[in-house]
Order: sequence, then C-alpha cells, then structure tokens
Amino acid sequence: MTTLTIQSFQNKYDVNIGTGLRHEISDLLKSNYAKVFIITDSNVAPFYLKEVISAFGEDTAVSSEIVPAGEGSKSMACYSSLLDRCLELQLDRHSLIVALGGGMVGDLAGFVASTYLRGVDFLQMPTTILAHDSSVGGKVAINHHKGKNLIGSFYSPVQVIYDTEVIGTLSNQEIRSGFGEVVKHALLSDHKWFQRLMDTTLTEVNQEELVKHLTSGIKVKAEVVEADERETGLRKHLNLGHTLAHALEAEFGYGEITHGEAVAIGILFAMKISEQTIGADLPFQSYTRWLRHNNYPLHLVSQIDPERTVERMKWDKKTVGNAIHFVLLTQIGAPTVTALTDKKLIQIMTDFVKDEGGTFD
Amino acid sequence: MTTLTIQSFQNKYDVNIGTGLRHEISDLLKSNYAKVFIITDSNVAPFYLKEVISAFGEDTAVSSEIVPAGEGSKSMACYSSLLDRCLELQLDRHSLIVALGGGMVGDLAGFVASTYLRGVDFLQMPTTILAHDSSVGGKVAINHHKGKNLIGSFYSPVQVIYDTEVIGTLSNQEIRSGFGEVVKHALLSDHKWFQRLMDTTLTEVNQEELVKHLTSGIKVKAEVVEADERETGLRKHLNLGHTLAHALEAEFGYGEITHGEAVAIGILFAMKISEQTIGADLPFQSYTRWLRHNNYPLHLVSQIDPERTVERMKWDKKTVGNAIHFVLLTQIGAPTVTALTDKKLIQIMTDFVKDEGGTFD
Repeated sequence: MTTLTIQSFQNKYDVNIGTGLRHEISDLLKSNYAKVFIITDSNVAPFYLKEVISAFGEDTAVSSEIVPAGEGSKSMACYSSLLDRCLELQLDRHSLIVALGGGMVGDLAGFVASTYLRGVDFLQMPTTILAHDSSVGGKVAINHHKGKNLIGSFYSPVQVIYDTEVIGTLSNQEIRSGFGEVVKHALLSDHKWFQRLMDTTLTEVNQEELVKHLTSGIKVKAEVVEADERETGLRKHLNLGHTLAHALEAEFGYGEITHGEAVAIGILFAMKISEQTIGADLPFQSYTRWLRHNNYPLHLVSQIDPERTVERMKWDKKTVGNAIHFVLLTQIGAPTVTALTDKKLIQIMTDFVKDEGGTFD
Repeated sequence: MTTLTIQSFQNKYDVNIGTGLRHEISDLLKSNYAKVFIITDSNVAPFYLKEVISAFGEDTAVSSEIVPAGEGSKSMACYSSLLDRCLELQLDRHSLIVALGGGMVGDLAGFVASTYLRGVDFLQMPTTILAHDSSVGGKVAINHHKGKNLIGSFYSPVQVIYDTEVIGTLSNQEIRSGFGEVVKHALLSDHKWFQRLMDTTLTEVNQEELVKHLTSGIKVKAEVVEADERETGLRKHLNLGHTLAHALEAEFGYGEITHGEAVAIGILFAMKISEQTIGADLPFQSYTRWLRHNNYPLHLVSQIDPERTVERMKWDKKTVGNAIHFVLLTQIGAPTVTALTDKKLIQIMTDFVKDEGGTFD
C-alpha cells in the first residue's frame, strides 16, 4: 500500500492506494463512526457494495443508496433526495458519508456531505482510474442544464481509500477515460513519464504499473492543489484540455464521449493552440498516434462546429468577462494561461477541424 | 461609523456599522464588481431596494430578486430557482451576491453564494436587529421540513454593511426578536451590559444606544467564532437558548413566534435548568419581569407539551447520539455545555411549564 498525505485548507488527509483495500476499511479508517451512509451507483453496486458494507464491521450501522450510473444523477433532484435520505437515516454530525464509485459519485456524495448539517465527514472510495483525479482536491459539485459542475463547493474528504483491484472490472472506454487525466498530469509535470505513457498500450497495463501511474497523478494534483486550493492561480493549470472537453461533452452528449476521452482530445487542441500562438514545440504527432492506437474517439473532431463550440466554452465557468482563458504548454512540464478572443479561437479551431479532423476519420 | 474586523478561516472581513451606510456602498466596498445580484424579500424591497441598487453606481450591472418574506423562502425550491437566476444573469466568479434583509435572506443568499460556481463573493446588508447575529460567523443554510438550517455550509461574507437607520422601520415584534440575541450575547459575556438591558424598554432605544448594543453583540459573536468557527467547542455556547427555541418555532409555527422571541424564552428555560442541575444563581425573576415588560410571548409557555418538545429537540442537529446537549450558565459570562437525558429534561420542562406557565398567562 502506498500512502500520500494531502494538506487542504480544511484538513490534512491520507490517500491510501493499494490492492484489496476495500476489505480493510475498518483498519484503515482513522475514526470510528456509529452511522455510515454509502452512496454508490448502479454500475458499481453489483460488484462491490456488499463487500464494502461488510468491511465496516458489526458496530457500525451502514446504510446505502444506489443512484443510476451516469452524469444524469449529478442533478438537483438527486442531490435533494439524498439529503432527504440522510435525514430519514437520522445521520448526525458524527456520521460518515462514503462515495463508492467514480467521479460522478464522488462529486455528488461530496456535495451532499459538504452541505448536510453544514458538513459531515466524507470518505472517497474511487473505483475508476479517472477518479484518481477527482477524488483529491476537494472539488464537489452537481450539474445544471446550462453546464457541468456549476453548483458545488470546496470540501475535502477525511480520507481516500483507493483499491486498485476494482479497476480490473473497468471497460476499455473507462480505462481510456481515466488515462486522459493521467496524460494531463504527465504533461503538466514530467517529460519522461509522458514518454513512458506514449509507449503504453492501455489495455495491457498491469496492477503494478497502474499503481505507479495513479500515485504519480495524485502527487501532481496534490502539489498543485496544496499550493492553490481555491483556483485563484496555479490550480487553473489542471484545466489543461478541459475547456474544449466540457464543450465536447455538452455537444456530443455525456454518453457518446466520456470525460477523460474529451480531456484527451482537449489536450490535443491545447497543443495545437500552443504551437500556433506561442510557438511551442510539442509532440503533437506522437500524441495523435497514441490516441489513435488506444481508440480515443478522434472521429468526433471532424464533427466539431467551431462557432457553436466556442459559444459553449463561454458558458464554462472558467470564462472571465468575454475572453476565454486557455491553459497552454510552453513545453512539457511548463503550463501557462493565455486569454484568447473568440475570433482567434474560432480560426484555430476551424483549422484544427479541417487539418486534423480528416486524418482522424 | 464603527468598523469591526473579523478573521474567519476563509478570509478577513470588515463589519461597518452606522447610520445611512446604504447610500455609501460604492465607497465602502473593497472591490469593484461588474455584476451584482441582490437577493431581498417582499418586506424589505419596498423600502430599500431602489436605494441600494442606485448606490452601486453606473459602472455596475445590478440585478435583483425579491423572495417572499418569511422562513418559507429558505426552501430547496427557492434555493434552486435562485441558482437558475444566477445562471440566467451569467454571473461569473467575479460577481457579487448581496443579501439585503434579515437573517432569512442572509442565510438563503449566503447558501446560494457559497455553492454557485463553488462560491462567489457575498455581501451581507442586514436590515434587522436579529441579523446582527446571523450576518457574522459564516453560517448559511436553508430549511428542511424536518427542521431548520439542516442544509447549508460555512461561508463568510466579504464584508458586512450594517445601516442602523433601516432599523427604524422594524415592527415591535422584530425589535423584540432582535433583542433576544442581544440578551444572549450579554449573558455570555458581561454582567453590566445585561443589567443595562434589564433597565431598557425596547421601544424606547435610540440610534446611539442601538449601535452600542449591536456593536457589543457582534464583538461577542466575533470573538467566539474566531476561536471556533466550525462549532467543535466554544461556538456551541452561542446556542444558549436555541435548543428549546428551535423546538418552539417548529411547534408554534414560524409565524406565531419569531426566532429571537423563541431564543429569549429558551434562555429563560436554560436559566431554569442551570439552577436545577448545576445550582447556578441567576437573575431568573428580573429577566422574567423584563420579558413580560417588553411583551415577549410568555403565554406560549403554558402550551408546551414537554414530551413532544423533547422529541423535537432530538431532531435538532446539535443532538449527538441520544443525549441532548444544553448550553447552561454557571453565572453570567460563564457558559458551559451539559448533556441531559430525555427523562431529566422532560421532568424539568414539566416543572417549568407548571410553575412558570401559570404566572405568565
């Protein structure tokens, strides 16, 4: 087991990463809880809910709620009904809410935990690769029909217990999605790690390599977040690839393209902008080959409507006034933030769709 | 103008207290905002909304929403529709949300501000005496049909601008309600101040005295909150009178008795418990006379059903496990927290209703 310690502005918490940790919850947890409420989804529950419930031991009253898998559950309606459930269960300030699932479950359960009785303890148990990113850093939220994560708070978990064994049951799409954020963390920090990733076929990654990638990813995230939890400066770098990604997710629907796949493509676009505006020399071609080799949905690029997509970006909450702020790379490991006009952005995106869209089909 | 500075775990903010401050907002505010969204209620809007809007000056786009006066607006439905409105207005992370009103508006608008885009700047403009308490300390929340303030967060304003002139338009009931919390702050801190209050007829307090009482009250609140913002210890003392108060409000309905009136009666009950359990010697009789002199609704005491009321108290979120924790006074200025069994509490309350209820009618 690897343990990282993260200092947030609210508290200090451990991230335990290892194989089979879901069976060791009661040993790993730093506090005892009389009442525990597990929030999970319909994909995860059939595999792991029973095991996790029994791992809490007999002295703990454990209840659970299974929400439908998918972004649709990050809704005001679902949030509100989970709060009703907390009250029915008479959870008090000394109870624990557990997020057992991927980023969706973590965001939703975390927002419930952050606002129920003005905040109760919250345990993240990520079950996806993608959640290595979202489970650390304290951002929790639900969606609004106008955009993703528009309602939420900054709220850290008391602990993250990350059982990498459960990643064995992920689909290839979920693995691709997760590695979208892994690639981002590599690009933000370490040229060698990025090169190793470029030599990796995602369906062949073993447990040991996986733990390494996830630990490295969480370290990058943790360093940035510790330096700037409220996203006033440095943390913006973590949005690399995300400005286009959110627009793609909204455009193609949350079913057609996963978050991490959208980020992976968003990164490619950020590389293109970095080359065209600040003259950066980036591995655009080798990264494109890697995306294709691992079946990222590059065919969607040719379907992008630049004007509509830029409109969507302006809806993204990272927008300030009228300029869209983009995270670019001057080189691997050296991110920077640049404001771009709509006009410039539409021009670069039109070229991107025309030049690259064709070759991806 | 008096200015107090409060250090919260999130930020440091000023509380400006004085006459006519609503006209000086643009001078007093420490930042400039391109977009401002004022949330107020149907009682306050006819008197002050126009003045406040115009006080922001021409460079600021000011929008507003008037919610119905009364606790009913602290609902999930109203919260959710205010978030919709924020999105319609395209408020971004650099916008300001203003709470213009009493505690209800502050709690509601504050919860919106704390969760919209994971938190935007928030200005408290209290318009009641009662709000001297709620506008400082960073507690924001909405109600649930199972109880008050069950959904919320800890979120500090960027500033509090408190125009005491607006208190001139308060009803006698609102003045009584406000002084319920003023008395609490006096009892928690200063024997002489409490005595001065006991010599005060509330309908005759002038602006100068009012500013003094409010400033002293905010100082007490600020000291406690700075020492313990998250209510793990000391802050519990601020719940003096509140355990019974919340039950009374729920029992008699939010129209029949106001929050501060309920607190004032809750304090009387806390004095009774303090005498009976820890042998404290408190000015129970003179406080009773003062409550009667100022028309607090003491007649409701005889209508209290002790068993049902204790059941309600157990629903209050301050409950831990099965024991109800009560804030008592060993003497004026010396609060303490004691756990009481249901049985003991019902016994003392039965005596309270029998002995005192009759004399109040």
